[in-house]
Amino acid sequence: MTDKILSISRRTRATPFTRRVEAAGVKGYTVYNHMLLPTFFTNNEDDYWSLCQNVQVWDVSCERQIEVSGPDSERLIQLMTPRDISRAVIGQGLYAPLCDESGGLVNDPVLIKFANNDWWVSIADSDVRLWARGLAHGFGLDVKIREAAIWPLAVQGPRAEQLVTRVFGNEVPGIRFFRSKMLEFRGKAMMVMRSGYSKQGGFEIYLNDPDLAEPLWDELFEQGQDLNVRPGGPNLIERIESGLLSYGNDMNFTHNPFECGLDAFIDLDADIESMSLPALRAIRGKHVHQLMGLVFDEAVFFPDFAIIADDRVVGDVRSQVWSPRYQKYLAMAMMKRDFLSANETLTVDGKIGNIVDLPFDFDAIR
Amino acid sequence: MTDKILSISRRTRATPFTRRVEAAGVKGYTVYNHMLLPTFFTNNEDDYWSLCQNVQVWDVSCERQIEVSGPDSERLIQLMTPRDISRAVIGQGLYAPLCDESGGLVNDPVLIKFANNDWWVSIADSDVRLWARGLAHGFGLDVKIREAAIWPLAVQGPRAEQLVTRVFGNEVPGIRFFRSKMLEFRGKAMMVMRSGYSKQGGFEIYLNDPDLAEPLWDELFEQGQDLNVRPGGPNLIERIESGLLSYGNDMNFTHNPFECGLDAFIDLDADIESMSLPALRAIRGKHVHQLMGLVFDEAVFFPDFAIIADDRVVGDVRSQVWSPRYQKYLAMAMMKRDFLSANETLTVDGKIGNIVDLPFDFDAIR
Repeated sequence: MTDKILSISRRTRATPFTRRVEAAGVKGYTVYNHMLLPTFFTNNEDDYWSLCQNVQVWDVSCERQIEVSGPDSERLIQLMTPRDISRAVIGQGLYAPLCDESGGLVNDPVLIKFANNDWWVSIADSDVRLWARGLAHGFGLDVKIREAAIWPLAVQGPRAEQLVTRVFGNEVPGIRFFRSKMLEFRGKAMMVMRSGYSKQGGFEIYLNDPDLAEPLWDELFEQGQDLNVRPGGPNLIERIESGLLSYGNDMNFTHNPFECGLDAFIDLDADIESMSLPALRAIRGKHVHQLMGLVFDEAVFFPDFAIIADDRVVGDVRSQVWSPRYQKYLAMAMMKRDFLSANETLTVDGKIGNIVDLPFDFDAIR
Repeated sequence: MTDKILSISRRTRATPFTRRVEAAGVKGYTVYNHMLLPTFFTNNEDDYWSLCQNVQVWDVSCERQIEVSGPDSERLIQLMTPRDISRAVIGQGLYAPLCDESGGLVNDPVLIKFANNDWWVSIADSDVRLWARGLAHGFGLDVKIREAAIWPLAVQGPRAEQLVTRVFGNEVPGIRFFRSKMLEFRGKAMMVMRSGYSKQGGFEIYLNDPDLAEPLWDELFEQGQDLNVRPGGPNLIERIESGLLSYGNDMNFTHNPFECGLDAFIDLDADIESMSLPALRAIRGKHVHQLMGLVFDEAVFFPDFAIIADDRVVGDVRSQVWSPRYQKYLAMAMMKRDFLSANETLTVDGKIGNIVDLPFDFDAIR
């Protein structure tokens, strides 16, 4: 496919940062939760090195926060996820699959217990708000569910801590991974969490006042000048190298969490009221697919994303990219498990690739 | 904003027609229900005249069909909409707002009673599947809910009937508006409905076999050569001139159907079990906004879409376009009703525009 223009309208919602993103020369967007998500500013590879070497500021407002509050909020959150949330600490982020009654993945958000009886579901790309409202109404739960007026801004890269500390102060380095503090910017306290959709380290600032969006953006770029701060966005190369999953790409509502290797985030034996647990207990070990990594020495092409072997479809490629660092062509693919049990390689177009576990282990690969 | 590239991935799903759409030279897409929706092939104005004068073929696969089947299917559909569906006829399309328990708009689909206990919800851009599944699980309803393997292809324009008749036969002209027939293409019966997102007349073909997508596309272009058939998509100029609403643009989940002028599609006094009716009965007449048309003699600019009068925000522009036919700048705007009661014009940047009812009445305007 050649490049196509994105037709932008109010349905593809702008964010409080969009004016700055545009002024910074954004070249591409995708649409995520009905909102603009900047994808690149120079090109994927150049953006990749900047992210890995310095620090970037990302407008990830599209990580909408579905706020569930009220006396039954914890009960509803637990219904939606097979991960035991009973020991969650206030201010902590918990990566948790959301699964329906058949075990299908509805979303894979970060759950944040913002306060007692006040949860934020920091969602991937699907309307979790509608599902939550449907469940709450059907079960007659005493909750309020809304898309909160929160617009996350990510600061990612090895110099992120330095930059965020300059802007939010000396409490920043003490924040542990997936923990947060309420810190002030221009007199307004907002949540700052050590998190983000890269493995380069960094923070997400949960902006709660749209009028502070441009001042915050400007301050980060001013304070980060000597750190070579640049605008960026979730980077395809970095996230595939790091094995970070993307809901809608690598998996969707037709897949269950076992197929995606999310076993560690499911408490199958917990005594919790979670709507997907009966189905997941029954599926365990019997799932058909497994998300795997593919590694080739050169780029390969999969017509219609299909992976063919022995004249049958044995899987499909979900994400793929050339890794400039490792000089390998990397893919994430949903593979049939019966094929995996007998095969560790794959031949595409005469080129032999290795089928490996995720995340990629580049020490083993080289 | 200058043009931006859409970063396409598997999350922005391709359709069975995408290869043909690409070969036909599509220049822009938007993302709709997590799927690619072609927006223009030459430019909006050129595409507009082709649509109004001849016939176009549109890949509207993104109008996903949420299929609700089973003994409780009609009960669930009725719960979701305040429109009385009890007299629906098989094969008929019903435009119907979906509203939640607070009266907020969840979607504005066309409901199709495909068979007894088998409904298709032909959705606008929100994950109705999740809401429906949440409600069904909460209420313990005996239904199956899935995104059906259906990919609508629209044929729109004054010559659409001629073209569709050539491909699907002589039963086509007898199909009334929002009615359908099961007609065969290459031996496979599929639903053909007189419908579509334009006022130029036409049909939607509910393709139910992806292997027939390219043969169907090719046949329409071959048979339509002398009719000047062209590829197209929902056209911003045409749909605004025609007053066709776009969920997510003109209204969203924060609005209720009265604000959008959808009163005719709500059976407020019907004896039906619809979850939004109590709220809608209470809101009626007390809603804050009204979706109106704005007409200016030349293009005007609304910073941040805000409509300012008497130093206060009195509304916001949701969609806007220059009409080459009427030589007017047209907008749809959510206006505060208290402003409307005293004002029939609006001054923007020194230019005076008229505030009019929707759909636009161009005989009155000229």
